[in-house]
Amino acid sequence: MHIDELETPFAAVNLDKLESNIVKLQRYLDEHSINNRPHIKTHKIPEIAHMQIKAGAVGITCQKLSEAEVMAQAGIRDILVTYNIIGTAKLQRLMHLARRTKLSVTADSEFTVNGLSTAAQCEQLELAVLIEFDSGAQRCGLQSPQEAAALAQIISASPGLHFAGLMTYPSNPKTDPFVKETKALLKRENIQLECVSGGGTPNLWQAHTLTEVTEHRAGTYVYGDRHIIKSGAMSLDDCAFTVTTTVVSRPTSERAILDGGSKTFSSDLLDLDGYGAIIEYPQACIYSLSEEHGHVDLSACSNKPQIGERLTVVPNHCCLVSNLYNQIFGLRGSRVEVIWPVAARGSVH
Amino acid sequence: MHIDELETPFAAVNLDKLESNIVKLQRYLDEHSINNRPHIKTHKIPEIAHMQIKAGAVGITCQKLSEAEVMAQAGIRDILVTYNIIGTAKLQRLMHLARRTKLSVTADSEFTVNGLSTAAQCEQLELAVLIEFDSGAQRCGLQSPQEAAALAQIISASPGLHFAGLMTYPSNPKTDPFVKETKALLKRENIQLECVSGGGTPNLWQAHTLTEVTEHRAGTYVYGDRHIIKSGAMSLDDCAFTVTTTVVSRPTSERAILDGGSKTFSSDLLDLDGYGAIIEYPQACIYSLSEEHGHVDLSACSNKPQIGERLTVVPNHCCLVSNLYNQIFGLRGSRVEVIWPVAARGSVH
Repeated sequence: MHIDELETPFAAVNLDKLESNIVKLQRYLDEHSINNRPHIKTHKIPEIAHMQIKAGAVGITCQKLSEAEVMAQAGIRDILVTYNIIGTAKLQRLMHLARRTKLSVTADSEFTVNGLSTAAQCEQLELAVLIEFDSGAQRCGLQSPQEAAALAQIISASPGLHFAGLMTYPSNPKTDPFVKETKALLKRENIQLECVSGGGTPNLWQAHTLTEVTEHRAGTYVYGDRHIIKSGAMSLDDCAFTVTTTVVSRPTSERAILDGGSKTFSSDLLDLDGYGAIIEYPQACIYSLSEEHGHVDLSACSNKPQIGERLTVVPNHCCLVSNLYNQIFGLRGSRVEVIWPVAARGSVH
Repeated sequence: MHIDELETPFAAVNLDKLESNIVKLQRYLDEHSINNRPHIKTHKIPEIAHMQIKAGAVGITCQKLSEAEVMAQAGIRDILVTYNIIGTAKLQRLMHLARRTKLSVTADSEFTVNGLSTAAQCEQLELAVLIEFDSGAQRCGLQSPQEAAALAQIISASPGLHFAGLMTYPSNPKTDPFVKETKALLKRENIQLECVSGGGTPNLWQAHTLTEVTEHRAGTYVYGDRHIIKSGAMSLDDCAFTVTTTVVSRPTSERAILDGGSKTFSSDLLDLDGYGAIIEYPQACIYSLSEEHGHVDLSACSNKPQIGERLTVVPNHCCLVSNLYNQIFGLRGSRVEVIWPVAARGSVH
């Protein structure tokens, strides 16, 4: 199938760029002896996860248990779930996964640790648990090395659990001092730090500057988007993921309307100017989104698109966008080589 | 099944409130002799569309052709697609729909009209076409009554097409003057205005003040959300649609983290303060979203939620949120009465 035969809007991945992004990151992390554990939340596609593993990744990262289930069903055998898994039903599902994969999970509270320990004991399993700490993102994570060391002791003393190290997102200059201090506290208790897991794409090429970090979890690097371009970690030309739309209306000389809106591009603005970069008209600005319409300001364009014309958009945040589609088209040049179901999409639990 | 047995995050609809919202709108529009043509983009669930029809709606509105296909497959027989349908593949699908439903469609350009006419002629069908005009939203739509009248003449003269009236979104005080002027221009050409279709939920209860509008298309009214509450058209208690989440982390005394983020609530802020209203903690503010985490500021709360606690959230924009889920739970009190697949979700074309 030729790309022109696809109905708009559609999301597509340039396979050459995808493959190159996978290889480039792996090579960089290999050079610096950092384990690569890509985050599959960006693509949610088992075949891409397998491509990442084949290139040299030690395993994958999932944010949701349901993503991990989809990936395990597709044969992925080393999975880190970077989430506090809470509640009887989820803990049971976690144990099912632990029976058939090398599974690790994170925790940032005694509440989570106790749940994990009870579940692992019931199933007579040993579960690897990393402690999440806050390196400044102010999301989850323990706030101080003292808190981290105290929870590590609890994990070490918890039946069914194995303390496997520290995890943070994103890894940054605050990471090393936090890890060093925690390490020193743990040394007194004879507790080892096997793994320090950092993450993020904007900060990707600085991973080697953090001496304490032993593995890196990047998600967005595989596709690329405007947010990552702005961070400097990737160029527009590196971006493998695009959404193709059609101009469906030209109500005024300055305005074009695309057949894609917030249900096509998501509403993530991420401090960017507009909701996507139009490759064919770099001067055009998608200044507003309705649910199924993109509002484009053409006032800065010397040449302007006509009704019926197709436009290729690099979105602001590919992780949210890919999550809106049931399938993604893998393109080799202008030919469709593969149609990938976004297998772990809608896996909200 | 009891609501407590559902794993979070999940999206649910209070069936009593849903039914009440459907009846209330129908009663109001009946009182004022305005046809009700609810927009199904909010729920994308055939059974709810049938409930709306059974209550008295003349038909439904769809934004995407694919939504219309799902609804036609579910037995809905009167569908308005408020979109410029462009391109050979889509026009062919439109004609398939027109063979088995009372179908109408909108256009705001000669380009769209020509495509519709060619397709309808090929299939020897007569297709009803309404002209979209811009009542101030600056999305699609013709800009002046002169433009609208000129396009109406083109439609009237186009083989295979039937000029069926005018459409705008949202209907507002600018609507009547635009319609009157267009009507006067068309009268000279002996062209009748059969239908004037207005739309919107925030402006819903003012529909009767627009004397020219003959039908109303509301979508969000069926569920309700924070945006509609702010508009004054619905109360918090009217909102039928909620997302239930669990507190998975309490990193600081002022911060809670929910197991739902921008893939759960969408990123639509719509000029509101925060990304959702937490029913149990009205003082709490969901001030930021990661993809799978909601960041909650508890500083204004005297009582604070603990890890493991479930919180019920009324989102900012239910239309975007329901589109993120594969299924919605219909609740009668605290019991699950129905599990609805969001059948037209992911129908991006």
